Amino acid sequence: MSDPDANTMTGAQALVGTLADHGVKACFANPGTSEMHLVTALDGEPRIRSVLCLFEGVATGAADGYARVAGTPAMTLLHLGAGYLNGGANIHNAGRANSPMINVIGDHAVPHLKYDAPLTSDIVGLAGPNSRWIKSANKVEETGSLAAAAYAASFGPKPGPVSLLLPADSAWLEGGKLGERLPQPRLRQVPEARIQDAAATIADASNPVIVMNGTALTEAGLQAAARLKAAGIRILTDTFYGKMRRGAGVFAPERMQYFAEGAMDDLSGSDLMILVGTGAPVAFFAYPGKPSLLVPEGCAVLDLGDASTDSAETLKALADTMNANDAAPVAPLDLPEAPTGDLTAQSVGKSLARHMPEDALVSDDGVSNGLLSYLPTQKAQPHDWMMLTGGAIGQGMPLALGAAIAAPDRKVICLSGDGAGMYTNQALWSMAREGADVTTIVFVNHSYRILNIELYRTGAGNPGPTAQNMLSIGGPDIDWVQLSTSLGVPAVEATTAEAFDAALEEAIAAPGPRLIAAVVPG
Amino acid sequence: MSDPDANTMTGAQALVGTLADHGVKACFANPGTSEMHLVTALDGEPRIRSVLCLFEGVATGAADGYARVAGTPAMTLLHLGAGYLNGGANIHNAGRANSPMINVIGDHAVPHLKYDAPLTSDIVGLAGPNSRWIKSANKVEETGSLAAAAYAASFGPKPGPVSLLLPADSAWLEGGKLGERLPQPRLRQVPEARIQDAAATIADASNPVIVMNGTALTEAGLQAAARLKAAGIRILTDTFYGKMRRGAGVFAPERMQYFAEGAMDDLSGSDLMILVGTGAPVAFFAYPGKPSLLVPEGCAVLDLGDASTDSAETLKALADTMNANDAAPVAPLDLPEAPTGDLTAQSVGKSLARHMPEDALVSDDGVSNGLLSYLPTQKAQPHDWMMLTGGAIGQGMPLALGAAIAAPDRKVICLSGDGAGMYTNQALWSMAREGADVTTIVFVNHSYRILNIELYRTGAGNPGPTAQNMLSIGGPDIDWVQLSTSLGVPAVEATTAEAFDAALEEAIAAPGPRLIAAVVPG
Repeated sequence: MSDPDANTMTGAQALVGTLADHGVKACFANPGTSEMHLVTALDGEPRIRSVLCLFEGVATGAADGYARVAGTPAMTLLHLGAGYLNGGANIHNAGRANSPMINVIGDHAVPHLKYDAPLTSDIVGLAGPNSRWIKSANKVEETGSLAAAAYAASFGPKPGPVSLLLPADSAWLEGGKLGERLPQPRLRQVPEARIQDAAATIADASNPVIVMNGTALTEAGLQAAARLKAAGIRILTDTFYGKMRRGAGVFAPERMQYFAEGAMDDLSGSDLMILVGTGAPVAFFAYPGKPSLLVPEGCAVLDLGDASTDSAETLKALADTMNANDAAPVAPLDLPEAPTGDLTAQSVGKSLARHMPEDALVSDDGVSNGLLSYLPTQKAQPHDWMMLTGGAIGQGMPLALGAAIAAPDRKVICLSGDGAGMYTNQALWSMAREGADVTTIVFVNHSYRILNIELYRTGAGNPGPTAQNMLSIGGPDIDWVQLSTSLGVPAVEATTAEAFDAALEEAIAAPGPRLIAAVVPG
Repeated sequence: MSDPDANTMTGAQALVGTLADHGVKACFANPGTSEMHLVTALDGEPRIRSVLCLFEGVATGAADGYARVAGTPAMTLLHLGAGYLNGGANIHNAGRANSPMINVIGDHAVPHLKYDAPLTSDIVGLAGPNSRWIKSANKVEETGSLAAAAYAASFGPKPGPVSLLLPADSAWLEGGKLGERLPQPRLRQVPEARIQDAAATIADASNPVIVMNGTALTEAGLQAAARLKAAGIRILTDTFYGKMRRGAGVFAPERMQYFAEGAMDDLSGSDLMILVGTGAPVAFFAYPGKPSLLVPEGCAVLDLGDASTDSAETLKALADTMNANDAAPVAPLDLPEAPTGDLTAQSVGKSLARHMPEDALVSDDGVSNGLLSYLPTQKAQPHDWMMLTGGAIGQGMPLALGAAIAAPDRKVICLSGDGAGMYTNQALWSMAREGADVTTIVFVNHSYRILNIELYRTGAGNPGPTAQNMLSIGGPDIDWVQLSTSLGVPAVEATTAEAFDAALEEAIAAPGPRLIAAVVPG
């Protein structure tokens, strides 16, 4: 595919060949008629692994997971505006995670558009708001060069999803040309003068706190953060982040609290907040009479870069400038005893800590059970934890699929609420087909439990029967073991801590996908 | 809810109360934190039945089905931009069916928007392209009046989906006021002079053909069409339509062919095409070297209105003007013998014809198997057939759910491809919860069969292993009986015509949801 005769190369071949030349290795696809030439182009491109997804939200969530692990974009293949819409929520999440991703959206042939056939829609209008970059390859000659441009644009300035529309005639016509590599945006460095100013400001503060995200959460970033911690700065991460290194031997920052009132209590007394790789913290939702901006009164804010900067470097430069040579201590491996009794999110976390192998990848869409499983794994084997960044639930299983494709030699563990899991249960089928090494844990409480909490917090009153019905996903109870099995993923249910611990040990030991329905209190 | 003290009425109560006053009777909901006050307002509104959907595409598809049957809009409840995106494909389909629908999209509180919290997105940008009307109720005082405006706007000029954004503070604040009813757009009449001109033009034509849609497909429209048929005009419907009356005693128009080359062959020789309630026919997709516009060379086109006109009236006026007093004969009830042998889409259609009760509602998302099941039901008990209008598969089961809520006394039959069904399998759970009287037939061929046909037709070449994998949904085969049962809908599999016939008879006799996995050739 790399070097066929330019006269006979189709636009689809030029697009696919260009992306392969740039190092794209995976395509998460849900094709339709307008993408048939892309399908055959992928058929002839051994450098790209094509993964069929039965719903586009699986494809885009998987591309996000792939990018978080590989650091480079995967492509998706979406079918016109409707396909984009189906994949849109997980594209939103990927944008919030700053994950590079190349969404290739098939469109009608250019001369066909004016007839307004049934699947016609304003794709640029629909996809524009959540695309870092969007173009339509309306001529076959430009399919390769626009693919190269899309690849570069997915890296920034802020990395994220880009959209490349491919009209069917640009795909099928011959005359395609491979695109040449363009300069690829790199994460910026914070200027030395700003680092020095920051160090001076910090020296004058009584209770400085760093809030950080992005590359600050890599092993290198956390090492620098540990030095700053030893120098007297409190270190917090955002409540939600794309990926963080954690576990034994890794410096463990604190985590910003989810609920606004808790976060404000926790931050009270801070007189300087230094933002590294993130914006000022804000409440996830607004609530009557509660603050939106989570910066205490009288606390100054110092901006040391956002998702477009290399925050690991920022922290290192700051630690060097402050002569912070010692590092805060880090915890050694310390695994909990086997949990017993009732199965809870905490006991799930303990079992996770016990059985997670080194370098495991965790995809956390556990909603109200996520945090409680997170805490007990702090001293487990070193691993990477990935979170839902954009608040659109239904990301966990797709993200896990993509992570497994990016790192076939690492065990992936997916934590999903039952409500969250129902959005994109089709991911299980792709895991089965691909033999993805994912153990999925579904927290089964037959409830949108977080909303029961939120109903109270928003002051929306005591729920009557209709409201209770809207927040319960019981009646009928979903049988996750059957559901998973029907899609090709072997599954078991656990209702006690002992049974879950044994099931998890077995699932992790087995290669390939498994699911455990963890029945926890509602 | 209708008349509380205006001082204490929340914006959410004003919105919900206004819609209830206007006659909205159903809400298909997938709420989140920003919609908690809407949930409690619905809790206090007995005139609206709230139906929880575990994925927003189910909610919007159900609202479409509701509108096609009831003729009035349902509301949906969607969670910010991500919720809109999840529901977007079926909103696209509803727009193509010209189904009135009121999408209420919760948003962050207005003062919270500027902080760009994780779920923030440009909702007006995302939802605008597929909304007939879109506004945000940024002040509590206007929630009721904008709800009234949204209701009216859903009726046209072309009926379709409208979007009303409700920021959380506009929902929770007191000071809401019920909105007053606005003039409701009605379908237009074609001026008499144009009807007379048309009659004269038709009289001069050798081979005139009517292509029709919209209200032309009601019983009254079809009666008028039968008179025009007897007067020598060929009568065709669009390939896909929102809803048509069919069966014994009902005039049966022909149906435009799906594939462009077939349609052009079929239409060749026509010298006048009269469009009634639709646009000029176009190919669903473009293909290399094949036409987009399905109007033969030399065939004149006469436009007698689109989805904004009352096409039943148009046909009646035309028949009156032409003094077309006789009507083409209609077939009496004629049920096929019980099919035997291999199970095929045709034998499914025969069993359907045998067992469909009078006034059944059919939701057809059967893709490559839909047409073959359609033909044998022509002389069955009178019924209404509803189709996928916008090409975004995954509409069938949600549409059936909404139809069952709109008409609890009618049996609903859903035809779904297995590929199509996987997009929105969550609809089965809502059917179970609501006791929806739906018999779902899934055509199980473990394949995107239509794409195997399209791969050949687009000239995209012989499929290699990757392409074959992209078009097959086997490996693993989905177990639809298990999947359905896991979501609370009793299910059986049928692999022979005899077994299917017996299973269908039993499913139709039983009230409430049932599913039959019909294993047909791939």
